[in-house]
Amino acid sequence: MSDHDSIRTVQWQGGRLILLDQRRLPTDEVQCELTTARDVAQAITDMVVRGAPAIGITAAYGVVLAAIDRIQNSGNNWQQTIGEDFELLAASRPTAVNLVWALEKMRSVIASTSIGSDPVAELLETAKQIHQQDLQANRRMGEIGAEFLGDNTGVLTHCNTGSLATGGYGTALGVIRSAFSAGKIQQVYADETRPWLQGSRLTAWELKQDEIPVTLIADSAAASLMSQGKIQWVIVGADRITANGDVANKIGTYSLAVNAKYHGVKMMVVAPTSTVDMNTASGKDIPIEQRDGSEILTLGGQNLGPEGADAWNPSFDVTPADLVDVIITERGAIHSPNADNVMALMKNAP
Amino acid sequence: MSDHDSIRTVQWQGGRLILLDQRRLPTDEVQCELTTARDVAQAITDMVVRGAPAIGITAAYGVVLAAIDRIQNSGNNWQQTIGEDFELLAASRPTAVNLVWALEKMRSVIASTSIGSDPVAELLETAKQIHQQDLQANRRMGEIGAEFLGDNTGVLTHCNTGSLATGGYGTALGVIRSAFSAGKIQQVYADETRPWLQGSRLTAWELKQDEIPVTLIADSAAASLMSQGKIQWVIVGADRITANGDVANKIGTYSLAVNAKYHGVKMMVVAPTSTVDMNTASGKDIPIEQRDGSEILTLGGQNLGPEGADAWNPSFDVTPADLVDVIITERGAIHSPNADNVMALMKNAP
Repeated sequence: MSDHDSIRTVQWQGGRLILLDQRRLPTDEVQCELTTARDVAQAITDMVVRGAPAIGITAAYGVVLAAIDRIQNSGNNWQQTIGEDFELLAASRPTAVNLVWALEKMRSVIASTSIGSDPVAELLETAKQIHQQDLQANRRMGEIGAEFLGDNTGVLTHCNTGSLATGGYGTALGVIRSAFSAGKIQQVYADETRPWLQGSRLTAWELKQDEIPVTLIADSAAASLMSQGKIQWVIVGADRITANGDVANKIGTYSLAVNAKYHGVKMMVVAPTSTVDMNTASGKDIPIEQRDGSEILTLGGQNLGPEGADAWNPSFDVTPADLVDVIITERGAIHSPNADNVMALMKNAP
Repeated sequence: MSDHDSIRTVQWQGGRLILLDQRRLPTDEVQCELTTARDVAQAITDMVVRGAPAIGITAAYGVVLAAIDRIQNSGNNWQQTIGEDFELLAASRPTAVNLVWALEKMRSVIASTSIGSDPVAELLETAKQIHQQDLQANRRMGEIGAEFLGDNTGVLTHCNTGSLATGGYGTALGVIRSAFSAGKIQQVYADETRPWLQGSRLTAWELKQDEIPVTLIADSAAASLMSQGKIQWVIVGADRITANGDVANKIGTYSLAVNAKYHGVKMMVVAPTSTVDMNTASGKDIPIEQRDGSEILTLGGQNLGPEGADAWNPSFDVTPADLVDVIITERGAIHSPNADNVMALMKNAP
């Protein structure tokens, strides 16, 4: 395929939400059909679907399912009772701000619905718009970000930021897709991304599907690659970008940013403006999701550590803006991000 | 137990070498009995035993087994034919210099044996000396290193450098044992240490056996811990230290050192002088063992990545001397290591 983009992780079909179960990749391709908001929230918590933009899209479709159910069972009270579904969906992952953003979009549709009218069609239309706009934003970011790369570039990415994490094409992986299609990339390296192994399970699978060669490394080997001159750009996504340009992203991103700075390697963060949280001043104010230690201590039923071992398992870390060379959004690039240039871009509403 | 030191990984019993099979920990405690040098070399390659000092000790006992066999089967030609065993043992892991050092010690015993006399008793005595001196060196390094730590110190260690990696007590873990016994340690954190998981499999198991609490983290989470002020010292071992103070150690050490420097966290390397290779000028000249990508792509028979994925799997990296605050040896500490102060310490032979 010419643009190396064949995968879709979230689909709406026949009044159901279909998710590609990312816990089962790369060995099994299994789809989950969801029909209730409760199941959607659980699927987000359990990481059937993950990636900030994909979570937002999924939650938007979750609101559609909630509305269908509430209108059927609560009648004219549906606008009150659906509040529970919003709370459930909002609490399913605490760090990604796209989730909150998508739910706000859906809530404003409900707010403008006159009592007694059926909002499902309009809610579905809005969810599909969120989905489509994300895909378009990714293609635009891919173009903008690829411009920064020179010829024969070695890139390193972390976690999965591709079609599996978004409405399609990807954020950081969208830039890599775009630059690869333009013939600019010498080699793609991917961190395996412990503990959940999004790099080996998802990024390697996705790039293989789309015929982009990739070499996996242990997360801790990135510094060695950089010292050998194999990497010119670290390209990652974001779960939340604060008003001052700090970036919350998958645990390990911050360590890469420190190493990139030390080695003179450039650091690019790729995220749609729905990821920018102007209500949060800096990275210090971002709630960091702590996940169960069992993600570190076990794998597929095997014990990796001794019985009763203790583990600290934050899902995200915060990279301060001064370690980021450029943030790519669908509205343009922010060089050397700070409160002023983030504000300037965000004020420039579409 | 008062000094938190109960484990021995290499033992000589009744003319056989007994190794605790580290591939089976932490779930099973299985011992391997070895009776030939070929089996010893294979056990080192397969990581039944690992850790630079433990490999050296194991190889020394391997020479004893070789001598028993060669004298029995080659008669007076044994001094020629045993050369093959030395080559086999020397090639079993390329990065650790203790292996070469221990084999040189054993070779010099053979060189001083008059033809026709039975050298086995003397070789065994030398192997046991290497073993005992390593244990004593570790206890001494434990004392010296612990002096550097203040009260309520948070320490982070990488890989396994304990009784499982040495003749007993450990190098970096010996300093941690000693400082813990002295009541100086607030919290021990251990990197899980991908891909082989020495941290979760071995360090957590060993510290649990010896009643020292430890919290495991994903390797890439170390930077977050540092930014939160939880770590005052990173304490690691070494597989080889070159004449200028550069340190080859388990992959991921270099990334920790870069992060430690960025966060103002101190970096301590603990290794006996048998790890110091004065014949190698700098880290650039150290051969770095490349291991099979399957260590990254599979775990216990499970595929972690898609079929046919590519992986880059260096077993070690090199930390330049300027990122190391202090090297602890059994002969004393080297502050801000460089060619001059490494030479000064090494000239001061015991």
